[in-house]
Amino acid sequence: MTDHREIDRIVTAALDEDAPWGDLTSETLIPEDATATAELVAREPGVLSGIDVFAAAFRLVDPRIVVEALAADGDPFDVGAVLARVHGPARGILTAERVGLNLVQRMSGVAALTARYVAAVAGSGARIVDTRKTTPGLRSLERQAVRDGGGRNHRRSLSDAIMAKDNHLAVLTAGGRDLATALREARERMPHTAHLEVEVDRLDQLDAVLAGGADTIMLDNFSLDDLRTGVQGIAGRAVVEASGGVSLDTVAAIAATGVDVISVGALTHSARALDLGLDVVISAGSDAPVAPGAAP
Amino acid sequence: MTDHREIDRIVTAALDEDAPWGDLTSETLIPEDATATAELVAREPGVLSGIDVFAAAFRLVDPRIVVEALAADGDPFDVGAVLARVHGPARGILTAERVGLNLVQRMSGVAALTARYVAAVAGSGARIVDTRKTTPGLRSLERQAVRDGGGRNHRRSLSDAIMAKDNHLAVLTAGGRDLATALREARERMPHTAHLEVEVDRLDQLDAVLAGGADTIMLDNFSLDDLRTGVQGIAGRAVVEASGGVSLDTVAAIAATGVDVISVGALTHSARALDLGLDVVISAGSDAPVAPGAAP
Amino acid sequence: MTDHREIDRIVTAALDEDAPWGDLTSETLIPEDATATAELVAREPGVLSGIDVFAAAFRLVDPRIVVEALAADGDPFDVGAVLARVHGPARGILTAERVGLNLVQRMSGVAALTARYVAAVAGSGARIVDTRKTTPGLRSLERQAVRDGGGRNHRRSLSDAIMAKDNHLAVLTAGGRDLATALREARERMPHTAHLEVEVDRLDQLDAVLAGGADTIMLDNFSLDDLRTGVQGIAGRAVVEASGGVSLDTVAAIAATGVDVISVGALTHSARALDLGLDVVISAGSDAPVAPGAAP
Amino acid sequence: MTDHREIDRIVTAALDEDAPWGDLTSETLIPEDATATAELVAREPGVLSGIDVFAAAFRLVDPRIVVEALAADGDPFDVGAVLARVHGPARGILTAERVGLNLVQRMSGVAALTARYVAAVAGSGARIVDTRKTTPGLRSLERQAVRDGGGRNHRRSLSDAIMAKDNHLAVLTAGGRDLATALREARERMPHTAHLEVEVDRLDQLDAVLAGGADTIMLDNFSLDDLRTGVQGIAGRAVVEASGGVSLDTVAAIAATGVDVISVGALTHSARALDLGLDVVISAGSDAPVAPGAAP
Amino acid sequence: MTDHREIDRIVTAALDEDAPWGDLTSETLIPEDATATAELVAREPGVLSGIDVFAAAFRLVDPRIVVEALAADGDPFDVGAVLARVHGPARGILTAERVGLNLVQRMSGVAALTARYVAAVAGSGARIVDTRKTTPGLRSLERQAVRDGGGRNHRRSLSDAIMAKDNHLAVLTAGGRDLATALREARERMPHTAHLEVEVDRLDQLDAVLAGGADTIMLDNFSLDDLRTGVQGIAGRAVVEASGGVSLDTVAAIAATGVDVISVGALTHSARALDLGLDVVISAGSDAPVAPGAAP
Amino acid sequence: MTDHREIDRIVTAALDEDAPWGDLTSETLIPEDATATAELVAREPGVLSGIDVFAAAFRLVDPRIVVEALAADGDPFDVGAVLARVHGPARGILTAERVGLNLVQRMSGVAALTARYVAAVAGSGARIVDTRKTTPGLRSLERQAVRDGGGRNHRRSLSDAIMAKDNHLAVLTAGGRDLATALREARERMPHTAHLEVEVDRLDQLDAVLAGGADTIMLDNFSLDDLRTGVQGIAGRAVVEASGGVSLDTVAAIAATGVDVISVGALTHSARALDLGLDVVISAGSDAPVAPGAAP
Repeated sequence: MTDHREIDRIVTAALDEDAPWGDLTSETLIPEDATATAELVAREPGVLSGIDVFAAAFRLVDPRIVVEALAADGDPFDVGAVLARVHGPARGILTAERVGLNLVQRMSGVAALTARYVAAVAGSGARIVDTRKTTPGLRSLERQAVRDGGGRNHRRSLSDAIMAKDNHLAVLTAGGRDLATALREARERMPHTAHLEVEVDRLDQLDAVLAGGADTIMLDNFSLDDLRTGVQGIAGRAVVEASGGVSLDTVAAIAATGVDVISVGALTHSARALDLGLDVVISAGSDAPVAPGAAP
Repeated sequence: MTDHREIDRIVTAALDEDAPWGDLTSETLIPEDATATAELVAREPGVLSGIDVFAAAFRLVDPRIVVEALAADGDPFDVGAVLARVHGPARGILTAERVGLNLVQRMSGVAALTARYVAAVAGSGARIVDTRKTTPGLRSLERQAVRDGGGRNHRRSLSDAIMAKDNHLAVLTAGGRDLATALREARERMPHTAHLEVEVDRLDQLDAVLAGGADTIMLDNFSLDDLRTGVQGIAGRAVVEASGGVSLDTVAAIAATGVDVISVGALTHSARALDLGLDVVISAGSDAPVAPGAAP
Repeated sequence: MTDHREIDRIVTAALDEDAPWGDLTSETLIPEDATATAELVAREPGVLSGIDVFAAAFRLVDPRIVVEALAADGDPFDVGAVLARVHGPARGILTAERVGLNLVQRMSGVAALTARYVAAVAGSGARIVDTRKTTPGLRSLERQAVRDGGGRNHRRSLSDAIMAKDNHLAVLTAGGRDLATALREARERMPHTAHLEVEVDRLDQLDAVLAGGADTIMLDNFSLDDLRTGVQGIAGRAVVEASGGVSLDTVAAIAATGVDVISVGALTHSARALDLGLDVVISAGSDAPVAPGAAP
Repeated sequence: MTDHREIDRIVTAALDEDAPWGDLTSETLIPEDATATAELVAREPGVLSGIDVFAAAFRLVDPRIVVEALAADGDPFDVGAVLARVHGPARGILTAERVGLNLVQRMSGVAALTARYVAAVAGSGARIVDTRKTTPGLRSLERQAVRDGGGRNHRRSLSDAIMAKDNHLAVLTAGGRDLATALREARERMPHTAHLEVEVDRLDQLDAVLAGGADTIMLDNFSLDDLRTGVQGIAGRAVVEASGGVSLDTVAAIAATGVDVISVGALTHSARALDLGLDVVISAGSDAPVAPGAAP
Repeated sequence: MTDHREIDRIVTAALDEDAPWGDLTSETLIPEDATATAELVAREPGVLSGIDVFAAAFRLVDPRIVVEALAADGDPFDVGAVLARVHGPARGILTAERVGLNLVQRMSGVAALTARYVAAVAGSGARIVDTRKTTPGLRSLERQAVRDGGGRNHRRSLSDAIMAKDNHLAVLTAGGRDLATALREARERMPHTAHLEVEVDRLDQLDAVLAGGADTIMLDNFSLDDLRTGVQGIAGRAVVEASGGVSLDTVAAIAATGVDVISVGALTHSARALDLGLDVVISAGSDAPVAPGAAP
Repeated sequence: MTDHREIDRIVTAALDEDAPWGDLTSETLIPEDATATAELVAREPGVLSGIDVFAAAFRLVDPRIVVEALAADGDPFDVGAVLARVHGPARGILTAERVGLNLVQRMSGVAALTARYVAAVAGSGARIVDTRKTTPGLRSLERQAVRDGGGRNHRRSLSDAIMAKDNHLAVLTAGGRDLATALREARERMPHTAHLEVEVDRLDQLDAVLAGGADTIMLDNFSLDDLRTGVQGIAGRAVVEASGGVSLDTVAAIAATGVDVISVGALTHSARALDLGLDVVISAGSDAPVAPGAAP
């Protein structure tokens, strides 16, 4: 579950973006005392993620709106499933609808795609993890969605773990320095709680990287054969992560090579928003239409 | 082009998210005086959008980094095209890389998808427009991406135009009130500069909506035949917008019915990030490796 | 009614401005357990606006303070009217007093002035609208005040409608381009939900502007005769807005020319704060004076 | 001069309010390369205040715009005076115009009104000071405007000086406590750098207030005779401030009573925005009209 | 007591700093339904300050956590004293623990040190005051801590009182101007509610400073003899403040010279955090360990 | 080096705190065109930290002020050393002085204390690390100061590494669960890049914690003998961290036991601000004193 202060910050910003000075339509057409009931309905199967975020959209627009969750984050659902029920002032429900949907649709889209990858590697020991290829501003929500889909998270940001990629290795070994020595010296400069992950492009780099003390070795764009060879060569001395060329078609075979971790950028950079709808039933609170006063 | 203050706000937030207390890897492995040159390269064809946003990521990390745009927003490109060149301190380039790419990839993905819809309706009078189904926090960028792809924008938010949908109409006509009268009364309450768009589900609603003074009538989920009938019935008295069931397969036929506007949620809610890469060539500024001091 | 998040933002900023590190006087002189009752009293007649904003000042300083509204926004009142009653901890009431008054006085001043303009055109079909000449930072409140006074709002900002003024027309027709053609081309570039208002200085511009498809035509600084001629010439093909030289002395005659809209900058740029006072009755919660501890 | 960070904060907020997602008109109608020159012209006489604030509006919209001040804050001017010249990209000038004007008009309105009060008391020893009845959010600018008009500032906020008014005195003396003793005890609780101002309604309170050690005594709503008596009674032992019933008609007589300070709420709560205009001369940068691409 | 909005701002920022995307340990190891009781215990004697701030840390992490204060700000305590009891969800208690402790430890450290200075001067008329040598961002809390320790506050910031130090005096008298005249002229430019404090380094400056109208005279780094001479010379015509060379060893003698105020930078710039601990007793809410789902 | 955006944020907040509406003294007493040169001088020996932060205070107050660093972060210095030279407008230098000093004094105090601990363990393999007992709001600066003093950082926050303390272990083993199993299961839930540190109070916990896969084992409050036994028992299978009871008197002996890491809360929670001064030489830019206009 994402921190409630983080959720409120993201949803408030989204509401400010979508209704910077109110909802002209509701204020013009909907009586102030009209109430409504609405249901969050699945128009395609998927995995729920972000029900708290969805609820926050309504609560932040009007604290009188009550959102009752009928499913929990991580729950799979079928077409037609009713995932939540919303009740309260009609104006606020209509104002918050789009922001609530936009967020829960994206998160559930990520969760559903993640679940397909996770299912594809079931039975192997491999875990499916996300990358930093997330939507700017929504990383915490998308990381939660990956977890809700059964995946795991990779490092959260540039600040909390080290990943030495080809560019970094090129610098480390500039001037002919020995890679293992260079990594050991780098390790000496790191905080003792920092994880050192090193990306390799070729099998012949493994010995140096192991000698340098990598905690995780990422095998980038390796063939299945090379992945297998790599796993055997590393032999448990580091976590093995496969990356590159991962799709729903290839992930099972990659998992079968014995890697520990498979990182999949597509989980967040290319997930489609899931089709969830809000079916609203409005019941005017009084016989009177909107008061004849002016609207903003 | 998006306002520079808005760009800086979004990119700063994205950098804070991705490097909340610095880039542990660069600071551990890359000498402070190393410089680099990098190229933004297309790994698939598409349409460029967000080159200013991409550049801002590097500038905001380190003002000494220079980004030279080799293509302009809206330019189509092929695989292998070099879209920009980045030069400056290596640490900053590596730190900003992911945020810059995440944004330009998403925007170019939206622009490329939009361009396909726009091409599909070429020759018709229909314009392709976006919806409010945008990524929370990134609406201004995604709207620009739609324009860069040759599309147009719909209303920006709940605050700047009125869209009366089925729920609103139900309330307006509660208690048997006449729809045309109700709309005319609503119009009286609106600012004179506000646009009144009304969504209809059935052809038999058209007369009342026209009599009520709608500026735009949205025909929601209409068959091609009904769209044609609707266009003829409206006969230029309002803008006609088609919505629902729009895909690359169907959009040309929809445009051929004579509608003025086709709104496509998929432009933003389901566009895939385009595959753009940053190829970095680092040249260490000195022979010396990273100073043996501690890293954060 | 203004959005509650917007109200809280404005009032919080005002409190931070007026009491950046507390209320030295209250903390020095008023016992912590003293309570008070206070009444918002009209010292001159007017129209109430901003009662929610007034109440927010007290609630945000101390949630235990209760504000009971005795009149509603839009209500006219006479000298001596009691508009609200405030009850709770005396310190908080005295701390919030000035901010609450400053806001409700300004808003009610705008509402009262607006009401005088609206009354002056009663019986005509003209609506009185505001302009963008509002107090920076308070536009949403001042627009509400205009509505509370019986007026209507014009566009809210540069972002939500188009107003082509003389400067813009000069550019559009630079190089001898035809105005009607230029406007039609501009219309093609606009979102379909955007309203196109064009300002004209002379009657001979009307044909081109009508041919260009203006939704609203603003007749700027026209004589009464020319306004009448303009209204007849436009003949319902566009909304007609009069602007310039509008005062309480002239507005009735302007309305009588048949224009639809009269925009009045004075509503917000020159309204006087209304004289409302807060009469406080403090009842110390205990016999004891302020504890002899130090004050900040 | 107001702090530049404060100016930038206020102007940025005002621009965000007035152009939340760009200037639809400029972007639709003005070519990107058009440049313009504009002059800030006085349409009525007054006193300039806020020329830096005016300039900031243009600089923050587009740093390429140059604003040349032709008069300084505090300078009086006549009708027709050219107070500043603005040059640069036409779009930015037109976008910033309203915000720049709104602020400089208000500030100059305050300065001009202040100057009239100051002139009315010329020759007396009295200083004209403002109150906390300022526009929420703009206090720092309005206080500067008062100084630019030749006035002085009172305390800035509830946090930086003590003003004991009738409500506070009532509490201090609840239960029959002696006022002089109560004030001396309060003084003991105050920081030694805090100023103690006490408001009195009757002459017979003066002895106790003086004995209590007030730094300033405010004579609230006193007749001219009573003011004179008060000044003589206080005899230099405290600063004497007159308040209440101050207008341009009465202020000279009040000053003649010998008071040191006259506080005038009207300086800020009821000053009219001064009529300043921006005369724009646009020169298109090229023959080409706006590119046929879409506008936001 | 510090303003609740200020407390919430500081504590929220501290929580964001300490748990930017949640508490990885609690979320991995502590069941969501586990509850806990914890006690804030003194591990050394001291003076309590910041109990509201401590409580806010828990409330802002999880509103269900209840903090019961067992002592009040300003209360002295011995080793082993239980100062507060915390009860609620275990995860939130463990997440907020460090932030709550960091703040209350620092504030109580300041209060305890202040109390020692105050005790050292007991019986003299001197008050112990703080300086602007506070921790950036925490000034309001540290000023409260000084008050809780029995001290008083000096001016709060550069904005709310004038302190003319040697550098300022050098400028004022540049070109041979007379100091008394210069100060009187400066006084004329100041708001009448501003306090004028002047720092002197030598006894021979006193006459000019008194003639210039200083409200407080700071005797900087004076010997005890010179302090005594200064106090006698000033003879009640200004507040006398001693500064420089103040320690627990010297403060009593300084107070005995008859000065009114002794300012002590060490109160805030060098106070040690007091050793307070949170003893937690967790009681798992269920038999079940953490659910086997993934952690962030 | 700390990120420049982070530095600017912290320093801007500090300036806003210390000069919320300008520097009353400078504006009253210092001519606008006076310039000054000032030197940052060490009044006691130490280690420099935060020279960029110091410089930012002046730059953010007035960009015309130039700060020339004469020493670098991490440099040790003696009494009297000139560490930086500041030149520019006198008003801005005097306004920024306190904020600049407050920050560099605290950071250098932390660096100097850290350097003493580091020196005390020289020759051993132990690294001195900080804890989360930092000043709220200043963690990034204090962590830099620790590095500048030759120390290393521990985890940065609750979000970026796991530390299972006694409370967590109690829950993990509630109901008699086996600790090793519980830790292995927890490890399975963690991101693969997260570091697992476990705190133990007794030697008999070591086997289970090692079997559970801890990356670091913290020996809390162990005797020297037990530390030695612990190091031998762990035998390189995990990083060994000593904590508790660490002082300058004991740290060398602790290091001699062979532990890898010694965490010292005192580095940040109890470091004294170092005595650095700013010696200002003002040279008035003109003969004229401050203009006789009013000050704020």
